Amino acid sequence: MAEAAQTLDGWYALHDFRTINWTAWKQLSNEERETAIHEFLALTEKWTSTENAAEGSHALYSIVGQKADFMIMLVRPTMEELNEIENEFNKTKLAEFTVPAYSYVSVVELSNYLPAGEDPYENPHIRARLYPTLPKSKYVCFYPMDKRRQGNDNWYMLPMEERRSLMRSHGMIGRQYAGKVKQIITGSVGFDDYEWGVTLFADDVLQFKKLVYEMRFDEVSARYGEFGSFFVGNLLEIDRFSHFLSV
Amino acid sequence: MAEAAQTLDGWYALHDFRTINWTAWKQLSNEERETAIHEFLALTEKWTSTENAAEGSHALYSIVGQKADFMIMLVRPTMEELNEIENEFNKTKLAEFTVPAYSYVSVVELSNYLPAGEDPYENPHIRARLYPTLPKSKYVCFYPMDKRRQGNDNWYMLPMEERRSLMRSHGMIGRQYAGKVKQIITGSVGFDDYEWGVTLFADDVLQFKKLVYEMRFDEVSARYGEFGSFFVGNLLEIDRFSHFLSV
Amino acid sequence: MAEAAQTLDGWYALHDFRTINWTAWKQLSNEERETAIHEFLALTEKWTSTENAAEGSHALYSIVGQKADFMIMLVRPTMEELNEIENEFNKTKLAEFTVPAYSYVSVVELSNYLPAGEDPYENPHIRARLYPTLPKSKYVCFYPMDKRRQGNDNWYMLPMEERRSLMRSHGMIGRQYAGKVKQIITGSVGFDDYEWGVTLFADDVLQFKKLVYEMRFDEVSARYGEFGSFFVGNLLEIDRFSHFLSV
Amino acid sequence: MAEAAQTLDGWYALHDFRTINWTAWKQLSNEERETAIHEFLALTEKWTSTENAAEGSHALYSIVGQKADFMIMLVRPTMEELNEIENEFNKTKLAEFTVPAYSYVSVVELSNYLPAGEDPYENPHIRARLYPTLPKSKYVCFYPMDKRRQGNDNWYMLPMEERRSLMRSHGMIGRQYAGKVKQIITGSVGFDDYEWGVTLFADDVLQFKKLVYEMRFDEVSARYGEFGSFFVGNLLEIDRFSHFLSV
Amino acid sequence: MAEAAQTLDGWYALHDFRTINWTAWKQLSNEERETAIHEFLALTEKWTSTENAAEGSHALYSIVGQKADFMIMLVRPTMEELNEIENEFNKTKLAEFTVPAYSYVSVVELSNYLPAGEDPYENPHIRARLYPTLPKSKYVCFYPMDKRRQGNDNWYMLPMEERRSLMRSHGMIGRQYAGKVKQIITGSVGFDDYEWGVTLFADDVLQFKKLVYEMRFDEVSARYGEFGSFFVGNLLEIDRFSHFLSV
Repeated sequence: MAEAAQTLDGWYALHDFRTINWTAWKQLSNEERETAIHEFLALTEKWTSTENAAEGSHALYSIVGQKADFMIMLVRPTMEELNEIENEFNKTKLAEFTVPAYSYVSVVELSNYLPAGEDPYENPHIRARLYPTLPKSKYVCFYPMDKRRQGNDNWYMLPMEERRSLMRSHGMIGRQYAGKVKQIITGSVGFDDYEWGVTLFADDVLQFKKLVYEMRFDEVSARYGEFGSFFVGNLLEIDRFSHFLSV
Repeated sequence: MAEAAQTLDGWYALHDFRTINWTAWKQLSNEERETAIHEFLALTEKWTSTENAAEGSHALYSIVGQKADFMIMLVRPTMEELNEIENEFNKTKLAEFTVPAYSYVSVVELSNYLPAGEDPYENPHIRARLYPTLPKSKYVCFYPMDKRRQGNDNWYMLPMEERRSLMRSHGMIGRQYAGKVKQIITGSVGFDDYEWGVTLFADDVLQFKKLVYEMRFDEVSARYGEFGSFFVGNLLEIDRFSHFLSV
Repeated sequence: MAEAAQTLDGWYALHDFRTINWTAWKQLSNEERETAIHEFLALTEKWTSTENAAEGSHALYSIVGQKADFMIMLVRPTMEELNEIENEFNKTKLAEFTVPAYSYVSVVELSNYLPAGEDPYENPHIRARLYPTLPKSKYVCFYPMDKRRQGNDNWYMLPMEERRSLMRSHGMIGRQYAGKVKQIITGSVGFDDYEWGVTLFADDVLQFKKLVYEMRFDEVSARYGEFGSFFVGNLLEIDRFSHFLSV
Repeated sequence: MAEAAQTLDGWYALHDFRTINWTAWKQLSNEERETAIHEFLALTEKWTSTENAAEGSHALYSIVGQKADFMIMLVRPTMEELNEIENEFNKTKLAEFTVPAYSYVSVVELSNYLPAGEDPYENPHIRARLYPTLPKSKYVCFYPMDKRRQGNDNWYMLPMEERRSLMRSHGMIGRQYAGKVKQIITGSVGFDDYEWGVTLFADDVLQFKKLVYEMRFDEVSARYGEFGSFFVGNLLEIDRFSHFLSV
Repeated sequence: MAEAAQTLDGWYALHDFRTINWTAWKQLSNEERETAIHEFLALTEKWTSTENAAEGSHALYSIVGQKADFMIMLVRPTMEELNEIENEFNKTKLAEFTVPAYSYVSVVELSNYLPAGEDPYENPHIRARLYPTLPKSKYVCFYPMDKRRQGNDNWYMLPMEERRSLMRSHGMIGRQYAGKVKQIITGSVGFDDYEWGVTLFADDVLQFKKLVYEMRFDEVSARYGEFGSFFVGNLLEIDRFSHFLSV
């Protein structure tokens, strides 16, 4: 048996993609729509308080294309909190006018292919990455992925040394995008259908394409990557939310 | 032909995942919702009587993410009882406000790759595992799986000795999680679309990820495992059920 | 080109799986439900007359899990009769409260891998299998399947002799279940998405699992079998049908 | 690069499969249903005029099983005509009571693996096949298919000579069914999701199974065929159409 | 790691496929339908102004078969504009009578497998291709595609030189269709589920089939192409739009 990679695990994450039922939404009166929006904004204010207390974070993006109209990304210390928030949202008026489009359950993860040392959970740089405040970048990209186990291309049968070396050069590509793309890896083995979720943030949407395309030529992706659906979106600032929903 | 593995088979199992139609549920009056909840709780009391009489068991978990809102897991001595309970639930008021999301039909199974001996059905330790009282752990994880039959990675073409040896080391990983994760394997060949269902119970949800990820590096999973959807959830205690459904 | 297997073909078969819309069904008055049930029972009486006249047969089973609530299996001398019955059912009141869940179109088939001889269509034992009265066993199991054509595992590229020999030992497993499991193979090449439908009948539901699992270790299944969805159900006797639908 | 096969292309084809919403249909008055049927029959009369003028052809079959209730097959000189007819049907009263089930867009195709010669578009035998009047056979079978491009089984990497030789022996099987099965091949590369549609017509439905099964042992199908869904149906003569829809 | 191909990236693209709910559309009064059509035409006039100002472009096609009834293709300088237009359309009256059928998010891309030189973004020929005015050809064909990463057929593991040479001969086929078929490649790595979208325009619909079929015999497609769904449609000129929607 190949030696298993060790992971560091931080906050739990829920990506919640929704489509809007515009026809039903338009049938409401202006006043009803106002009320529904305010109820939702009150929810986001609670989330902001949590974020300010460094007890979680969230992000809100509108999604381009028919796959979804918007995405809420939430990170929290426990699975119960995610479930609680999800149910709280489901009970709002606004939720009546949304249709679930896709969701992803995972946990912020750092992969320990690097040499050992101190207790990483005490390292402030690592803590900042395990318990992140999500950036307010202009664009988001999300996709789930697996490491392939297929014939001769079986990641999980490779010796640790080879995986470590492959991941090191893979990481080099990512580092070239430092300052351009911020990447949050969340692990979902045992939690959802793929093994990882990848959430990218950038102020130039083209950098998502450049990064993912360049990585695809790297052996880790080329031979061992299996990718799910890709979602791309624009930051939905709270003060633009009413405009987004105005009909 | 490779020698077939022998199995011990216990109670039949139904995993029943449901999504809640919150919009319709909110349109009920408080009184109607109360009535619906009480009718469901009365059903669970019958299930509890059955459990107390050691004639079956059940578990109720809320599910995180859009795949489902809650799961009922039932184990019973006969397939007819499962069908009867399923139909009884379907006829309740509450069921009108749920949408079937996923289900799994199987039977509690112990795999006989260990050396032979006494009649295992007489062994009290084995009986406790074949006819289990489901734990009230804080978290549940469910996923169905197959053993792969693909090119050179064909589990069913391996000689019994090799399968036995592979399963032994695979089982070693599981044993490291004793006390942390309780695992119930249910067989579904001939009953549902995958060959097995795996239900994990734990009080620390992260142990699901650690266990499944560590196993993935073991040859049994790495070369021979094919996995379906993963569901993760929080214990939904009966006295929290009204809160869960309050709108 | 490999020599094609010869088949004997009997009655045409329709497996019709339905889910019940319980919410709508409950909205009917008792009287309306009675009327709908009686209309359906009148239909089944016609089917019974056909069966008594040895001009076809049918079976009715409730299905466990969310895939379907019940299955009607019909065998008839012509494709037109199946289509006629299907449309007749679709026009009933009861059908308004069902949702199509899955169906399968095929023809009862005996595979001629055995040595040649007399005209098999004149042999009473073979006739009884080609034009069967479906058993009233307590349990049913249905699944469609293909013979694999994938890389080195390509059934249709094997020489006739090898296929014949593989099928012979495969058949030996089935024969061990004689008296426990009755198997009806229906061919669906050109009629539906898989190449065969397998319908198993037994009075002990566990025998389905034992039979299918044991066969999976046989090369014919291990290397060459591709399986669709599995459905398992309990006999739905006509005098239990009203109970099944009572709300 | 392998030399591309040349094709002869005739009329464009639309296969349009529909399911009937019987519940809604029954809610109409007899008079409304009559009106809807007459409107549809008037449409088919226009199609018959086109057929009589040799400017296209059509066929109407009821489909067995839940995949669809009926299929309209249309061939016309231009893609615009197909689109026009499709939209015209969609705007009828009857269409309100149908649900789209599957469709296929293609063009009648003859494959030029045979030796070259005269201008085939001038040959009356070839013209009759490129611009066919669809037969009124008792049964239809439709399925889409691809030539496989997978590992060592890659049709498109074979040299022309080998493809020609394989197709020749494949065609021999078809020829044995001359008089029993009429086959119309339509090409859909660039038009729909598979590369070809195969439409078979016969007066003995069992011949579909015999033909497709025998071909499956031929290398062209065994190694290189990938098949989509299969649909089988009974001729729906215009004077039986009212009966078909009577409730 | 193989050297990554460099790309030139132009305007962002949204392909938006819609099905029409004819039944609901017919329930409107003539006047309501007129209003809805005029509101939509006003939107297209804004798009035309943008096109005239060379700040984007759009195309409108009716789609043949059940996959969709029409497609709007939009190209714009930013992802925000696409999202804005999509939401604006979703809020129209007409959109209430459409059902999302498929969409694709990408960016106009030129692949840099050719030798280096001047700054391509300054080259007027290249600019015309990166920021195109979409042609008003009679027919459109759209399909998404991937380069395969499967066993020995792994495009991303090939050395740059080999990819360059393969793409060069692949491009030769395309060039034979110059004047017959106009091709716009859009890259979607990181934006949508496939790696590229291919949009073809022609005045002879058969040229789509000829081009795509001929290319399929080229190694780039034969060994390395994975194709999604194909959509084919007829130009929907603005002055035919009312006719298209008249009921």
